[in-house]
Amino acid sequence: MKPVRVGLLGLGTVGTGVVRILEGHQEDLSSQVGSPIVIEKIAVKNMHKTRTLTVDPSKLTEDPWEVIRDPEIDVIVEVMGGVEQTKAYILEALERGKHIVTANKDLMALYGSQVLAKAMENQCDVFYEASVAGGIPIIRTLIEGFSSDRIVKIMGIVNGTTNYILSKMSQEGASYEDVLKEAQQLGYAESDPTSDVEGLDAARKMAILGTLGFRTNVELSDVQVRGISNVSKEDILYAKRLGYEMKLLGIAECQEEEFSITVQPTMVKKTHPIAAVNGVYNAVYVFGEAVGETMFYGAGAGEMPTATSVVADLIAVVKNLRLGVNGLKAIVPYKPKKLKTDEQIFYKNFLLLHVDDRAGVLAQITQAFAEFEVSLESVVQSPNTNVPGAEIMIVTHSASKASMEKVLNYFETLDVIHRIKSVYRVEG
Amino acid sequence: MKPVRVGLLGLGTVGTGVVRILEGHQEDLSSQVGSPIVIEKIAVKNMHKTRTLTVDPSKLTEDPWEVIRDPEIDVIVEVMGGVEQTKAYILEALERGKHIVTANKDLMALYGSQVLAKAMENQCDVFYEASVAGGIPIIRTLIEGFSSDRIVKIMGIVNGTTNYILSKMSQEGASYEDVLKEAQQLGYAESDPTSDVEGLDAARKMAILGTLGFRTNVELSDVQVRGISNVSKEDILYAKRLGYEMKLLGIAECQEEEFSITVQPTMVKKTHPIAAVNGVYNAVYVFGEAVGETMFYGAGAGEMPTATSVVADLIAVVKNLRLGVNGLKAIVPYKPKKLKTDEQIFYKNFLLLHVDDRAGVLAQITQAFAEFEVSLESVVQSPNTNVPGAEIMIVTHSASKASMEKVLNYFETLDVIHRIKSVYRVEG
Repeated sequence: MKPVRVGLLGLGTVGTGVVRILEGHQEDLSSQVGSPIVIEKIAVKNMHKTRTLTVDPSKLTEDPWEVIRDPEIDVIVEVMGGVEQTKAYILEALERGKHIVTANKDLMALYGSQVLAKAMENQCDVFYEASVAGGIPIIRTLIEGFSSDRIVKIMGIVNGTTNYILSKMSQEGASYEDVLKEAQQLGYAESDPTSDVEGLDAARKMAILGTLGFRTNVELSDVQVRGISNVSKEDILYAKRLGYEMKLLGIAECQEEEFSITVQPTMVKKTHPIAAVNGVYNAVYVFGEAVGETMFYGAGAGEMPTATSVVADLIAVVKNLRLGVNGLKAIVPYKPKKLKTDEQIFYKNFLLLHVDDRAGVLAQITQAFAEFEVSLESVVQSPNTNVPGAEIMIVTHSASKASMEKVLNYFETLDVIHRIKSVYRVEG
Repeated sequence: MKPVRVGLLGLGTVGTGVVRILEGHQEDLSSQVGSPIVIEKIAVKNMHKTRTLTVDPSKLTEDPWEVIRDPEIDVIVEVMGGVEQTKAYILEALERGKHIVTANKDLMALYGSQVLAKAMENQCDVFYEASVAGGIPIIRTLIEGFSSDRIVKIMGIVNGTTNYILSKMSQEGASYEDVLKEAQQLGYAESDPTSDVEGLDAARKMAILGTLGFRTNVELSDVQVRGISNVSKEDILYAKRLGYEMKLLGIAECQEEEFSITVQPTMVKKTHPIAAVNGVYNAVYVFGEAVGETMFYGAGAGEMPTATSVVADLIAVVKNLRLGVNGLKAIVPYKPKKLKTDEQIFYKNFLLLHVDDRAGVLAQITQAFAEFEVSLESVVQSPNTNVPGAEIMIVTHSASKASMEKVLNYFETLDVIHRIKSVYRVEG
């Protein structure tokens, strides 16, 4: 059987894993797909870099175009990252009839619909399992496993760096700054951690999951994002005392074809299965109208887990090649896009207020909630041990985002409230 | 577009769910597959039974052959259960070129290879996602999501009834008999619970998962089975004290193409993600050489979750129909079958012994372990509060099944040991 020829863009962490799996499991893979899979060319940044694995130097090039334009190559595996330039490579590869396997969440979140449209035009496959949650086959699950269901809610811990930081803060009572520094030393966080800690990386992944789950075209700009850089160790302590764990959660919800997507630090009830996901692990919780609660857990990053997903996609491409059906099973969002307004987004809230310690303050505050139609689950007032005055801890019942914003705006005008110390979404 | 015509065998719990989803999501499904999916005929036991959903009576028949032999029908959805007679229906349907979606674990565990061979002969699809773990798309995950990896271990809580019973016993300190009675009243356990509580149902599902995970032909007789009917509330109490939860675990392991599959009550370390899976929920933990730890969690049974999987399979059949590729992606186990011997199966053990309370007994016992090359992780001796003598609680390091059996056989001959009260596998 004629071998399938692969062009690899990028030989970093994931690229190295892809080569290792293709070499190590060659016999297994041939048995499954009926033909050998051969890496024909690899585009790298620096041909002379020392590497942890041995690659035939004649396969290396520093020019990605050389890979894209090689007529012998059937499939491009893109694990180099980047957005604009990479998009140009991918689009040209598709025009040349090459199938694409990519781990690039940035590209898919920003230009997924353009890439998929180009793929359809050219009857090519574009698979991107590795772009979300590394080794967890969540994209397949949403496309195929739940094809029969209506997804109501997707909650994801889809960024390992922030989950590592929050888990450590929770387990050790450490501060954000200290744990971030440690994570950077361990290589779990980048030297510029903005994309992770400000929730941008998670937002990209949630846009991809939302598009698949709700079958409508979710764009990155639809995702409301708040990162973890302001989460204090006190916040986590309060959360734990109330029976919650603090997690950076992506939450996508859809009712009657209207959706909302957010990423924010969230207090998750400890009894919820996603609350127990710690360290660099990822998990995606999916609630379907028919299937109910499900959760998928695994390594969200790393050389081998991510490469597992890349090569699984590659196998799918090769099987389609042999059947001659590439590009014919593409999932194109077919539902009209309707974003929820702030009046339609409901959730529970946690608030921590620093207030005057005198009679009538609590009444004034609870009165405000009542006026804006936010009902309360629990209110605890206690003397503030750090600053003068008292501390009020409030958990609301489910309330609209719009109402909560009115409450918070009003609180800003109240003299008896010194400070709105913390506000978090609450789940579970 | 010409509608796809479905023949339904069975209109019990799952069958009802399938009809509900096909009717309720009709528009969604047509958008996905490009043609309407119509239920043409339904075989039921009793045409005149009162049902919770309205079905056109002209579609009902009490003769499954009428469905199988209807030339208009493209796909048979089998949710009636049963083995020998049902196999006959399925094989004839395949001979007539009809594709099969089944939720029948008994059939697939016993005759899966025969059914799949017949399907290949006739270029038909046979999908059976719903046969294991209800709404969790674990079969797809093993076939496609982890196609690139080597699966080393699969641990499953794949029987909701027994997980409900053990969870209740753990949470409430109740006895097996009391909880079983309650489960029967709630409809979580059958009036004859043997198949569930003796582990046979779990064994069938593990045979299916093993076949897919290890790509070799695992037969039901390869699964060593022990049920939960002898698990006492004291055993669970001891487990909890040591930091374990008692679970009926299916465990399939494969190293260097040699596998073992067992189902037994197992003490699982509380920190292991599968230990927190409670009630009627199912979970499958998969450890892959490259992907590492993953876990998939959801409802293991019930009308709508199971129907979700059945209809997802149906959608896959219909997509293949439109592409003309049915039966071409069948996964046939291609690896030679090599079962591990008892010398090759290693795990940790928990033992509870009732012994004479006098000097030298403990020495005699630990000496025996040493002779049979089983090393010990912990040993606790305490006075027995219920019967005369002392109680010794032992947790071994990982030891071969063969060695452990030698130890246990030797203990049977020792006068100082009154009773080997409990022996459990330990995981995590």
